[in-house]
Amino acid sequence: MTENTSPALDIALAYHRAWTGKDFERAMTYVAEDIVCAAPPGLIEGAEAFRGFMGPFTQILTGSTLIAAFGDAETALLMYDTETVPVASAPGAEHLTVRNGKITHLRIIFDRAPFDAARAARSAS
Amino acid sequence: MTENTSPALDIALAYHRAWTGKDFERAMTYVAEDIVCAAPPGLIEGAEAFRGFMGPFTQILTGSTLIAAFGDAETALLMYDTETVPVASAPGAEHLTVRNGKITHLRIIFDRAPFDAARAARSAS
Repeated sequence: MTENTSPALDIALAYHRAWTGKDFERAMTYVAEDIVCAAPPGLIEGAEAFRGFMGPFTQILTGSTLIAAFGDAETALLMYDTETVPVASAPGAEHLTVRNGKITHLRIIFDRAPFDAARAARSAS
Repeated sequence: MTENTSPALDIALAYHRAWTGKDFERAMTYVAEDIVCAAPPGLIEGAEAFRGFMGPFTQILTGSTLIAAFGDAETALLMYDTETVPVASAPGAEHLTVRNGKITHLRIIFDRAPFDAARAARSAS
């Protein structure tokens, strides 16, 4: 795993370790009130909306591995794999902008297809 | 856009610029014969299989923007957005391992859901 250090990366990794460590409330302490998150389902604006998006995901999380993490003064870029109840391997990537110690912008990429397939399988059973 | 420099990042960006610039054959010159690519549909092994995976994608590509790019001696991490014929915004992230100037391992993350939806809409019409 590649890891350098930077002010933004420190915050990004603290946030990452908190939510992957199932301490979502601690993770939220790194999230700006006016966060803008560009996610596969669309734009999520504000900390409460973000909580509604990420909180449920941490409930189905059973494991995670950090694949790579880089950063500079204001941004960080992370890739990781997650293990979840419905999907065995659900890798994700995040580009985070950090201002005054808080994440103000987060773009997250992951594949919704296996989650959609798991949901369809549950509905069919 | 954040960009540092590193031997692996130089190759990753040369590859990226080639395929996003619609010069897929030039992009393939940076790909190792024994590349292993971890992609949303599964593991793709060898340059010819990789060509069959990425080549068709470059045919539907209409635009791209590099969001962030970092690297160290042997690895690089990229995030970008792409514009394609079926999907207006299809962002992706890649973690690349480079040895002797060639990409030997590539993990790519993107959301298949909008491509699946576009395919279903075409089938229904």
